[in-house]
Amino acid sequence: MSVTFADIEQARERIRPLAKRTPVLTSRGFDMRAGVRTFFKCENFQTGGAFKIRGAANRILSLTREELDRGVLAFSSGNHAQATAIAARYAAARATIVMPLNAPKAKLEATRAQGAEIVTYDPRSEDREAIARRLAAQTGAVLVPPFDHPKIIAGQGTAALELLEDAGPLDALVAPVGGGGLASGCALAAQSRRPGLRMFAAEPERANDTYLSFRAGERVGIPLADTIADGLRPPIPGELTFAILRERLEDVLLVSEEEILDAMEFLLTRLKILVEPSGAVAAAAVLFGKLPPNLGSVGVILSGGNVDLNLRRALG
Amino acid sequence: MSVTFADIEQARERIRPLAKRTPVLTSRGFDMRAGVRTFFKCENFQTGGAFKIRGAANRILSLTREELDRGVLAFSSGNHAQATAIAARYAAARATIVMPLNAPKAKLEATRAQGAEIVTYDPRSEDREAIARRLAAQTGAVLVPPFDHPKIIAGQGTAALELLEDAGPLDALVAPVGGGGLASGCALAAQSRRPGLRMFAAEPERANDTYLSFRAGERVGIPLADTIADGLRPPIPGELTFAILRERLEDVLLVSEEEILDAMEFLLTRLKILVEPSGAVAAAAVLFGKLPPNLGSVGVILSGGNVDLNLRRALG
Repeated sequence: MSVTFADIEQARERIRPLAKRTPVLTSRGFDMRAGVRTFFKCENFQTGGAFKIRGAANRILSLTREELDRGVLAFSSGNHAQATAIAARYAAARATIVMPLNAPKAKLEATRAQGAEIVTYDPRSEDREAIARRLAAQTGAVLVPPFDHPKIIAGQGTAALELLEDAGPLDALVAPVGGGGLASGCALAAQSRRPGLRMFAAEPERANDTYLSFRAGERVGIPLADTIADGLRPPIPGELTFAILRERLEDVLLVSEEEILDAMEFLLTRLKILVEPSGAVAAAAVLFGKLPPNLGSVGVILSGGNVDLNLRRALG
Repeated sequence: MSVTFADIEQARERIRPLAKRTPVLTSRGFDMRAGVRTFFKCENFQTGGAFKIRGAANRILSLTREELDRGVLAFSSGNHAQATAIAARYAAARATIVMPLNAPKAKLEATRAQGAEIVTYDPRSEDREAIARRLAAQTGAVLVPPFDHPKIIAGQGTAALELLEDAGPLDALVAPVGGGGLASGCALAAQSRRPGLRMFAAEPERANDTYLSFRAGERVGIPLADTIADGLRPPIPGELTFAILRERLEDVLLVSEEEILDAMEFLLTRLKILVEPSGAVAAAAVLFGKLPPNLGSVGVILSGGNVDLNLRRALG
């Protein structure tokens, strides 16, 4: 199963009722600090607060009515859970989401508020994928994987398509990488539209499985990562996603926890936008000079904005 | 000296090199809470972090070369200072900004970074306007007033012009009101473009000079206000601005300090945008049901985003 540019163009039409065309912002202050003209694709403004709706909607809206009537199933503690619930509700399909017991209460509530059924499990003693498989076997529900699926990859790629249209010709593009759905879809979309565009993935130093895999030329797993970028913790790249990334990436850029926080702070206080830690990783890579020199313009995917933040404490 | 719709249309062309066309955002979550479809004009993303560049640029770029060579002069501790400095730099005019000694250091620095000369004074013992007049007499510099001037009013009105184009036909518009430059310019622009549009100003309860003036039918002053909305503290409406507002406003909506903070928090955590307290006052009025019922759609000006905020403390 491979993914083509045509799949991404079809995804774009399919997800139109659910995914916003998010704005592209620029900042002279950021450009001066980073030394490169930067175009930010603001997926933190996306439906559900993250790019995840693009892939989930593309998968779910590709199902037949008969499949939808069996319900859909996803396992996620984060943005993919909410995205699946939103897309399922739109398609009038029952959604079951398998979430760890210790998931943030706000995310459990937001997912339940979309009408999804939440099944919790104990991540210390139970295997999430085994639970999901058992549920799928019992109910016949269709799985909506978080990244390693052609429809998910094609859906996420639509973000780069829009960015290139709004920003004009870019020399490079940087996307954060966790499982690789966003980075691989964007690489495919951007390089199909603009051959020669230099594609980079950005990853926390503490969750460097794609970095290690890219250097090894094959998928390398790491222990569960302890990083503030909680959306980028998948311990090994996907099969499909890594096949695309190995082909298309120029490099994987690593950032420290402090660099992620500093980038979030710059985006918040200077660009006036709230980006979650995972969503700020690509911006951090550009801000802290991880790109090769002499790039004229670069696109950056700000992938999400779901972060608990206490405003009154921040002002005090 | 009156202001016409043609002045606003000319301002729009004049300020194009300096003022961004800021995006208009929407949020289903906000609409559901507020009970009205709301379109946010994001002037927190504007050059200098606030709408003020629109008026300052319109004033400064209307000056002759001979006037520019005498330099420009403004008194402000806030967003108008930075806007004047930015526009003056662009026009290659020297800028002198009179700021209180106790102005936030970040604002002093940001204004100085634009190449302006800062003259500080002690607000407890010295009269700011007297200082500005003396400086103007000494140097021949041209004054860039913060709100009560036709060019300033026309410049600020361009925000409403853009909002109406992007949001489509609106039933109502709400702008925050301090001295009244933004509210009066927007009222004029919006009702010229769309006669019958219902215009509202929003004001902190604690700085209710426009509210009192509107009810009295004449300008009423109040003592220096103690509100978190530091941009809305002018103690009396302008002459020109109030003449327009008295004519065009349907009402002045008051909000409490807590309502302002709650609106800021909603905008930050749900829309993912940072809005300063003054900038959130119109959104607070809509969120907390101060508008009359049965409006189909309303435009809200988020006037700025310059607020000191400690991200690490907010996450901790």
